[in-house]
Amino acid sequence: MHVSCYALYTPRVCRATNALVPSRNIKFNIRVLLKRYGSSLARPSSSIISSQTIFSGIQPTGVPHLGNYLGALREWVKLQDNATEGTKLLYCIADLHALTVPQDSFQLKERRREAFATLLAVGLNPDRSTIFYQSAVPAHTELYWILSTVASMGYLSRMTQWKSKLQLPENTSLEHSLARSKLRLGLFSYPVLQAADILIHRATHVPVGEDQRQHLEFSRYTANSFNHLYGPIFPSPDALISPAKRVMSLKEPTEKMSKSHSDNRSKILLTDTSEEIHKKVKVALTDSEASITYEPIHRPGVSNLIEILSHFDGRSCHELALAYKSASLRALKEDLAGRISSHLQGVRERYHSIMVDKSGYLDAIAEEGARTARANADVTMKQIRKAMGL
Amino acid sequence: MHVSCYALYTPRVCRATNALVPSRNIKFNIRVLLKRYGSSLARPSSSIISSQTIFSGIQPTGVPHLGNYLGALREWVKLQDNATEGTKLLYCIADLHALTVPQDSFQLKERRREAFATLLAVGLNPDRSTIFYQSAVPAHTELYWILSTVASMGYLSRMTQWKSKLQLPENTSLEHSLARSKLRLGLFSYPVLQAADILIHRATHVPVGEDQRQHLEFSRYTANSFNHLYGPIFPSPDALISPAKRVMSLKEPTEKMSKSHSDNRSKILLTDTSEEIHKKVKVALTDSEASITYEPIHRPGVSNLIEILSHFDGRSCHELALAYKSASLRALKEDLAGRISSHLQGVRERYHSIMVDKSGYLDAIAEEGARTARANADVTMKQIRKAMGL
Repeated sequence: MHVSCYALYTPRVCRATNALVPSRNIKFNIRVLLKRYGSSLARPSSSIISSQTIFSGIQPTGVPHLGNYLGALREWVKLQDNATEGTKLLYCIADLHALTVPQDSFQLKERRREAFATLLAVGLNPDRSTIFYQSAVPAHTELYWILSTVASMGYLSRMTQWKSKLQLPENTSLEHSLARSKLRLGLFSYPVLQAADILIHRATHVPVGEDQRQHLEFSRYTANSFNHLYGPIFPSPDALISPAKRVMSLKEPTEKMSKSHSDNRSKILLTDTSEEIHKKVKVALTDSEASITYEPIHRPGVSNLIEILSHFDGRSCHELALAYKSASLRALKEDLAGRISSHLQGVRERYHSIMVDKSGYLDAIAEEGARTARANADVTMKQIRKAMGL
Repeated sequence: MHVSCYALYTPRVCRATNALVPSRNIKFNIRVLLKRYGSSLARPSSSIISSQTIFSGIQPTGVPHLGNYLGALREWVKLQDNATEGTKLLYCIADLHALTVPQDSFQLKERRREAFATLLAVGLNPDRSTIFYQSAVPAHTELYWILSTVASMGYLSRMTQWKSKLQLPENTSLEHSLARSKLRLGLFSYPVLQAADILIHRATHVPVGEDQRQHLEFSRYTANSFNHLYGPIFPSPDALISPAKRVMSLKEPTEKMSKSHSDNRSKILLTDTSEEIHKKVKVALTDSEASITYEPIHRPGVSNLIEILSHFDGRSCHELALAYKSASLRALKEDLAGRISSHLQGVRERYHSIMVDKSGYLDAIAEEGARTARANADVTMKQIRKAMGL
């Protein structure tokens, strides 16, 4: 029963804006993008790109919590709902990436389904977005090999994710014996498969969390290296950095809400019932002051509650703090729990109805998604084969 | 017009025997194998293995010369012709491996065809052996990723091929800045794709050159690591080490005959005309002594000629030396050139007729081979997916 965020899009802090923010180095006009975002995305000028393609992925590793939802999944739905007609949208369950850490095969099988059901439940529409399992599209790994032949070992060794997954310091060298003895090729080359995921679909825009900026830079670098050798096949994908919704733990409000936290009350899962949500918000850790103010540094607990509320409300955190100035903490918590619960009610209900369905609904959508994704990837593979003489 | 030997099978010295020699650690009875080899191969006892499967590959990187032919290609044909009915034989053109060094795409396209035509010309029968382009079977790279997740970086870093390709000393560490700056992931992870090539077809026997023993050990280790985690999917492949036919350069008889040697007279190519063969053998470097003796250490030039002759003759090198004791060097050279030329005549003629054919003969065979190889690989992929929960 767990589905959590794949590397391409994880929640990070950015308190000021409600729009996706393109990363640096983007080719097209940021002002145009920002102006138009909400009803459409800007069209980049590169001649390689015939249309906008948005791609992202999620690892099937645990139930998405509120942070994953606000930071990634809800943004994917917004991108879908606001995309121009010609924009392609592809979202994958990155089950091959999940294999970089030990998996129980029975659990993985379940989690893949749960992740798929979650994407449908939050509002991705399979008639509009292509939703698929990564492992159902072999071109992802075909391109993984091909990009392996251009990917620099030096660059990969300087990346941080394999070190953090092994709980090694960022300055650990490959030669470090501990690293060597634990490290598997798949974890080390993770960014190369991720680049293949993005490039095989000629993605122009990739919604990612701030912590994945490094990986997207690697994808851009790899795309450019390949294009330099074999001609202009890949557009250089631009990051759409999440405005972040850094939802903090309800029990340790200086830490991010995390699926791996042992205290279940620290996180609200998309599958939580209304009662569970009310209970968790009620016992959320705050400080000893009774008043309500928005001071993220000095009062992280209450400020986190205000921030979460702001994501379900048109008002900013400061406006909400002002509005609740004379209210009790209990009243704030009740309002918040109610807002979360009613917002998630539809998600929860759709999720459960998909999961109990026995008609083969999910499998049929997955098969259709895989077919579309394969066709899209095959167009790229044909170009690649031709360019490389294969 | 060049096709040369892929890693799995390169010629190495072994002067005494004419049969393929299984490597150490093999599971089944060597005596049985040696006894039966010639009319069949022994059946290993492992319960994973339902039948014998022989797999090897060749890189499309240059015209095979006599060394490649005697050390690998002729052995493949012998294995085909002597295999029992239930034995599967698969031979691939390892075009994906070729990408680990820079390639001109037009040249690669040509060389792939030439390699394929060569396999047919030397006597591989597409009705009996499955001959295919590696890049036409995506399951090779699917398994490459999957094996990446179990392959140890430490093990890979200790392997020698990436160092020798970069002309670095064998004790070079990954951290060595020169290595780092030059090294691409594909060259470093070459043995993992090679393991995937072998394991995706559940090969039980892999004809390889002595220099590839290390890579086959890695494949065995990787198969065992995978089986340990996910259950008994892969048989542990056994090396069939070539009796080697270490054919030496005609101009520098202490060096192996090599396609990369700048002096074209140092090597006999399978496509050489009878005139070219006679000319090259005539100017082959020998010492100043007029007599004919077999002394590989002290008289490498004339001994190399005797060795080559022995491969086309029933007699051993010592028997031949005795037979030619009173003959002139010129007579030996003429006999040798005549034997090589008449042996290769059929190969040469078939090669040219395949290459000039415009009826699509080669492409049709390649498509049929790819279909068979895909079907064979898909059986394995289904088992893998099931075992891993994909």
